[in-house]
Amino acid sequence: MKTIISAIPIFLFSIVTFAQKDSLTADTIEMKRNDTLIIKQMFHTALENGKSYKVLEHLCTKIGGRLSGSEEAARAVSYMKEVMESYKFDTVYLQPVMVPHWVRGVDEVAFFKSGTEEIPVNICALGGSLGTKGKPLTASVIEVKSVEELEALSNSDVRGKIVFFNGPMDPKYIRTFGAYSHCGGQRWTGPWIAQEKGAVGAIVRSLTHIEDKYPHTGSMGSRPNNNGIPSAAISTFHANQLSKTLAINPKTEFSFTMNCETLPDTLSYNVIGEIWGTENPEEIIVVGGHLDAWDNGDGAHDDGAGVVQSVEALRLFKALDIAPKRTIRAVLFMNEENGLKGGKAFADSVKSQNQNVIAAIESDAGGFTPRYFALQTHDEERMQKVARWLPLFKPYNIYAFEHGHGGADIGQLDEEKTLLIGYRPDSQRYFDYHHAASDTFDKINQRELELGGANMAALIYLLSEYGL
Amino acid sequence: MKTIISAIPIFLFSIVTFAQKDSLTADTIEMKRNDTLIIKQMFHTALENGKSYKVLEHLCTKIGGRLSGSEEAARAVSYMKEVMESYKFDTVYLQPVMVPHWVRGVDEVAFFKSGTEEIPVNICALGGSLGTKGKPLTASVIEVKSVEELEALSNSDVRGKIVFFNGPMDPKYIRTFGAYSHCGGQRWTGPWIAQEKGAVGAIVRSLTHIEDKYPHTGSMGSRPNNNGIPSAAISTFHANQLSKTLAINPKTEFSFTMNCETLPDTLSYNVIGEIWGTENPEEIIVVGGHLDAWDNGDGAHDDGAGVVQSVEALRLFKALDIAPKRTIRAVLFMNEENGLKGGKAFADSVKSQNQNVIAAIESDAGGFTPRYFALQTHDEERMQKVARWLPLFKPYNIYAFEHGHGGADIGQLDEEKTLLIGYRPDSQRYFDYHHAASDTFDKINQRELELGGANMAALIYLLSEYGL
Repeated sequence: MKTIISAIPIFLFSIVTFAQKDSLTADTIEMKRNDTLIIKQMFHTALENGKSYKVLEHLCTKIGGRLSGSEEAARAVSYMKEVMESYKFDTVYLQPVMVPHWVRGVDEVAFFKSGTEEIPVNICALGGSLGTKGKPLTASVIEVKSVEELEALSNSDVRGKIVFFNGPMDPKYIRTFGAYSHCGGQRWTGPWIAQEKGAVGAIVRSLTHIEDKYPHTGSMGSRPNNNGIPSAAISTFHANQLSKTLAINPKTEFSFTMNCETLPDTLSYNVIGEIWGTENPEEIIVVGGHLDAWDNGDGAHDDGAGVVQSVEALRLFKALDIAPKRTIRAVLFMNEENGLKGGKAFADSVKSQNQNVIAAIESDAGGFTPRYFALQTHDEERMQKVARWLPLFKPYNIYAFEHGHGGADIGQLDEEKTLLIGYRPDSQRYFDYHHAASDTFDKINQRELELGGANMAALIYLLSEYGL
Repeated sequence: MKTIISAIPIFLFSIVTFAQKDSLTADTIEMKRNDTLIIKQMFHTALENGKSYKVLEHLCTKIGGRLSGSEEAARAVSYMKEVMESYKFDTVYLQPVMVPHWVRGVDEVAFFKSGTEEIPVNICALGGSLGTKGKPLTASVIEVKSVEELEALSNSDVRGKIVFFNGPMDPKYIRTFGAYSHCGGQRWTGPWIAQEKGAVGAIVRSLTHIEDKYPHTGSMGSRPNNNGIPSAAISTFHANQLSKTLAINPKTEFSFTMNCETLPDTLSYNVIGEIWGTENPEEIIVVGGHLDAWDNGDGAHDDGAGVVQSVEALRLFKALDIAPKRTIRAVLFMNEENGLKGGKAFADSVKSQNQNVIAAIESDAGGFTPRYFALQTHDEERMQKVARWLPLFKPYNIYAFEHGHGGADIGQLDEEKTLLIGYRPDSQRYFDYHHAASDTFDKINQRELELGGANMAALIYLLSEYGL
């Protein structure tokens, strides 16, 4: 395409729309014009001189996967603390939290037997899984497409076998998290139910739309007695291959070896930075993402993006010399992936110190181009107050404030006291890389990433100016 | 992110909103419910069993860059005709058109001299440029940031030199086409103005946001006497390198060798397929993209995506056995990039046959995730009629119908008679690959691509059902 299009009219449009809708007085029109200009400056700063892309590059390529309890997680804590200190926030500190320490070990090996041939397949242990202690676990396979299908089987059909959960992500969901939710049960509860029915192991089809050779890990849901059985994700390519082989020879045997194990809980930290409010410092606006990431990739989209965007949102206030009326606080949560201990510890501290967190924004859906904000509230007045700001965001690719889920970490806060807000970028590509070795820095587009941080900064600014 | 979110509420929301806004009668509510269901089926078919991704893979990886007049362009014509015939449209035919035939030749070589050292840089000839007939063109360099800066120079400053246009794309435009428009003049008219001032050659900074080593080509604007001077794009990486060197040593010499030339015009074709209307066949709805692409890449986003989406839009009618009330016509235009001859020939045929093209949709802004439709019209009634359909599109990531530019090829049609509509996907990544060797199939996301075709199909369906 070579045609000339000007972007200018959309800015004018947003101001006009805003003015029309609210029947504003002269004073408030002036105020909103200032908001429009400040928000525009935030975006210009982010796009011309944003820092989050460079910070994310370091987090991904110099540190990499940073699962709770790991050496990489410790380095990520130090690095992000240094970054926030270099931005001269009013305070930067670590919040201690004990976290699970599960390690993958080396040499994950798997194959199935087709006739006399051993066909190698790509697997990776699900987070928290037992290993096979270095010895192959070999058994015949029973394939199911869902947890429900497994539950309908008699225990004698399952006993002694490896259950192969092979439910595909449903491509029909426009928002891909819907598909993840729909077939995620096979990973969250499938292995436990397989164990209850006497299975010796579980293999779960990777939760991704595309057919490729990357296994996508992830945690299993917790349960009281979690001895479990060795459980692994298998790449979609190999899941399809295995399924075809089973259709021809139902007695096909699967064999896998894993050395993963759970070590004693480890001390780690949430990393927190604050800029104190000038007028209502006791009212706090939180913004955050999670610093931990699965060990197999670099955690670029999940959730390095959310981490650097949250820090950038505060940095934009410093870069533009904007003193927020209310306190704004970036929280980099530890251990979202396999325990939520950071989110829980943070919520506990808010509660025990009786802090007034009026709103919390979470970015944990990738670093893609902006789409909307999801507001988790039953308070329609509050919803409408925020929704009235929408014209200020439309020029920046935020097209809606909708009812929805805020996020896993901020979800530990009291929903009655705190407005929980999820930042939602476009979801089409998210599960291509999610929890896989392919979630690397090269999948990040700088502009898309920076637009996310700036949109969060803009929302924080309005929350800080006007409260709730 | 691991949290469970359901996508279902947004569908309900769209139906309700639609019903509320229009104060519909029971009959029309029923009709719109049917529209909702048909559109949903279109998306489900596209996402579960869409064909455009596979067709694009062939177009990119088996044929590749297909500049007007080339062997590849001829193969692309044959292939897309076969594809449409295989879909059993009511008619598929070729519309002859004479097109320019410019060839790059081999061995584009360039370097600049830093002291005694020759620093190699990546260039590619701008479309339509004269070559240097295989011999190095060497001269000292004068750097400018814009056409205006060049125009302010005296001819004696420019005479005998190579003008180096080094204006960067402005990152502040949220919609990146605005930045392209803003600094595109250095490529469109810069070389002509340089020639008028006595320059012997022109080097133009690639029109892309990112710093990389790919030169991005593109056409220069036409002018009556276009002998011109040898003119090439230089990669942003090397443009920065050259600029730094010039700052230290303004006498730095640049040398480049190109073998490009213009051959006699060649016979080529627009490729056209139709499904005839059942009630008003004389009213025609056009959808299209351009089949030609620059020779240096594979033309995946520009505009293979628009080509396969346009054909897919018609295929979805066949796949779902929907007989459109009005005639729908896919037009794959030849020669958008360097002449617009296909668009002009098509518009001429519409005029000479007095055809009633009520609307034309163009996809030529990449295969990225959907954003909005741009409507090129001064007729507010028409604008409002289409805009009332918006609630049917919001579940599928189309968030606006806006006033804007339809597209270069459909722009040849009579704007008074035809509603011109541009399909607009997200633009953040577009210029990373635009007109460069990096515009390849691996940059395409299947879901994003298929959503585009389905959104165009949905709009065609409504235009076909209700007219304008």
